Amino acid sequence: MRVYDIIKKKRDGMALSEEEIRFFVEGYTCGAIPDYQASALMMAVYYKGMTPDETAVLTDAMAKSGDTVDLSEITGPIVDKHSTGGVGDKTTLVVAPIVASCGVKIAKMSGAGLGHTGGTTDKLLSIPGVRLDFSKEEFISIVNSCGACVCSSTASLAPADKKLYALRDVTATVDSIPLIAASIMSKKIASGSKNIVLDVKAGSGAFMKRSADAKALAREMVSIGDKNGLNVTALITNMDAPLGYAIGNSLEVIEAVQTLKGIGPSDLTDICLHLSSELLYLAGKGSLDECFDMAKNALFSGLALERFIWMVSSQGGDTSVISNTSLFQKSKYFRTVKTRSSGYIQRINAEKCGIAAMLLGAGRKAKDDVIEYGAGIILDVKPGSFVKTGDRIATLYAENESLFDSAISMLSDAFDVGEECPAEIPMVIDKFSNR
Amino acid sequence: MRVYDIIKKKRDGMALSEEEIRFFVEGYTCGAIPDYQASALMMAVYYKGMTPDETAVLTDAMAKSGDTVDLSEITGPIVDKHSTGGVGDKTTLVVAPIVASCGVKIAKMSGAGLGHTGGTTDKLLSIPGVRLDFSKEEFISIVNSCGACVCSSTASLAPADKKLYALRDVTATVDSIPLIAASIMSKKIASGSKNIVLDVKAGSGAFMKRSADAKALAREMVSIGDKNGLNVTALITNMDAPLGYAIGNSLEVIEAVQTLKGIGPSDLTDICLHLSSELLYLAGKGSLDECFDMAKNALFSGLALERFIWMVSSQGGDTSVISNTSLFQKSKYFRTVKTRSSGYIQRINAEKCGIAAMLLGAGRKAKDDVIEYGAGIILDVKPGSFVKTGDRIATLYAENESLFDSAISMLSDAFDVGEECPAEIPMVIDKFSNR
Repeated sequence: MRVYDIIKKKRDGMALSEEEIRFFVEGYTCGAIPDYQASALMMAVYYKGMTPDETAVLTDAMAKSGDTVDLSEITGPIVDKHSTGGVGDKTTLVVAPIVASCGVKIAKMSGAGLGHTGGTTDKLLSIPGVRLDFSKEEFISIVNSCGACVCSSTASLAPADKKLYALRDVTATVDSIPLIAASIMSKKIASGSKNIVLDVKAGSGAFMKRSADAKALAREMVSIGDKNGLNVTALITNMDAPLGYAIGNSLEVIEAVQTLKGIGPSDLTDICLHLSSELLYLAGKGSLDECFDMAKNALFSGLALERFIWMVSSQGGDTSVISNTSLFQKSKYFRTVKTRSSGYIQRINAEKCGIAAMLLGAGRKAKDDVIEYGAGIILDVKPGSFVKTGDRIATLYAENESLFDSAISMLSDAFDVGEECPAEIPMVIDKFSNR
Repeated sequence: MRVYDIIKKKRDGMALSEEEIRFFVEGYTCGAIPDYQASALMMAVYYKGMTPDETAVLTDAMAKSGDTVDLSEITGPIVDKHSTGGVGDKTTLVVAPIVASCGVKIAKMSGAGLGHTGGTTDKLLSIPGVRLDFSKEEFISIVNSCGACVCSSTASLAPADKKLYALRDVTATVDSIPLIAASIMSKKIASGSKNIVLDVKAGSGAFMKRSADAKALAREMVSIGDKNGLNVTALITNMDAPLGYAIGNSLEVIEAVQTLKGIGPSDLTDICLHLSSELLYLAGKGSLDECFDMAKNALFSGLALERFIWMVSSQGGDTSVISNTSLFQKSKYFRTVKTRSSGYIQRINAEKCGIAAMLLGAGRKAKDDVIEYGAGIILDVKPGSFVKTGDRIATLYAENESLFDSAISMLSDAFDVGEECPAEIPMVIDKFSNR
């Protein structure tokens, strides 16, 4: 078998066989197939796509390209949740304790944030003392005792995906729905998940700006899961404006804690309850309505907050900042942004908010950038809010005053003010599932 | 400027700017741009094509990526000829002396053959003593005295094209008309040509199997020439069956000498006269009809043969084998192939004949293979010949008896015999020119 023939076959729009796909993934992972042939193939896939069967095999081959996590020592029902990435997306911090407090285990491997989107691991690391680098035994032990644990994913998990993603990132071949779907699902499969709820974001702050693309990605991932024997539910959720009001790591933890106290923003609370009920449903805890009520009860009874404190404590974190969020270290400087006109907020461009937060030090432009955990943005408004000229619409936090100018300029561009109150967009736009 | 943005722009079907193309060619040649980004870009070009302006700039950038030959010291009109490669294509050996004997200089840089197609340099090297590795001064001096010289192209000529072609060859991105056209024309421009006749082969033995593709390639090359200030004429010629009867290096030289004596095969003679008259026309020697008569006269008067002997002698060759072609060293072994049916020869698949000759040692499977100059095939028939079962249709020559089996099996497949006499296909199918 020659990789040349595989490239040519895909170039000409034909479906690759299982054998060809596995030959490519194995050869590329071990270095027998050079980058320049892989990038040509990725570009051909960009144009010609892959069939559901090809995508499922690619996913499985990438999942098996390195270590795989065996979660069989975890007792009871176990679920996983994955978000395609957004701005102000702190749902995992709320959903994991809700689900765990309902008796369903959640063992989550998570990556660091990059660009305008944040990462769950960074948010957790803003809590003093929190560890994410557990051995397999520690990870399983925490999940078995407190029901939830978030750990950072290791380099040995789906190395084919890591290598291929890095290549796609510099060859303009990232924007391919089968390749994105295979990349996400290969990591989920390698990390041992069998019941997965995917939060596929759509809108200005999401990777998929158009909801049609988000739906196509969701369908593809459900199909991959189905062909690989997993239960997968994908919710398409609204990421046109930032989720909640807080963007930035400790700022988002504080908002997540408020949500776990039942006093969080309604959009965030709404999405967290939907994600939680889908997870509970996949775990077999009852009908979807029953699961929704169960999640709601866990949230408003304080049981979920209690479980979050337990999880943070199990991960070595200082829980005093959860009990009293004013103890979180603040950024040294802040600035406010005011409206220059009156009317209804039409849109808040989430990507621009995310970039502004990144410029303030809350995120990474490049992989090795250092994060300031206290940096970020607190918005005062949502799309539909009425404002008068001079009203404060956001407060920015940073460790270094020189960062404000470009961040304020970026953030100011994120707001549209108009005369009419905009129509409300539902938070959950659509749902795809093989259950 | 980032190569990522260049790839993305082409991926999305947009035309690249002159600055972007030059940035890519320069960066790739010096190694600043890695192969994996270049191959992704080549695949995007494969799908999205290039505008005539982009192709012309790419050609110029590749031509200027290394040394360029300055032919200004050659006195009088000067022309160049290039063939896209075929089977039994010994036209240069006939055309160069015709043109030179008519007072027009021809300074030709030529490459080695690969695969089923032969190369002019290999054919010339079958003449004992012939040299091709001239210094620039020697090359110009031979052209100035005898009017014609063939030398091998050097590695420093259009290195961007060499590097890019090697990459395209292993990433299934060779089959792109703008890239093929730019590759050919960049070498012509770098070697100092201003008046170029292109012999674009179409049919089973050609790179372009379909004459529509050959025409598209011809149009593209004429356009490149036009935008770069060159006079270019492209003839689309028939390469469905081998040209002449001889395939293999010294066998083809013998056939070229017969043609220069006025007793060559009619298809070969016909194409050589057309190519010669187009060259003379570009050199301003008169109307096309006048130039045709001039070429014919040079051929049938023996002046062209005399000039060929002069050229071989100038290049260090032993001219006794030209005067008496029976002195060419013969291959040790031969075999004949006979028909298994009666009727008219419908087609002779030139590619299969070329591969059979290569298997006999007349060509190279890989770049470093050694050629047996006496090896090859003499056909007894042409499409339209009437044969009876058992008639000899070809004789094969090789230095090693073990080579015959696979060559005979390949060659036997090349012939189709049928009841009807096939329609004759003209040798010159079409013509494109900017003059």
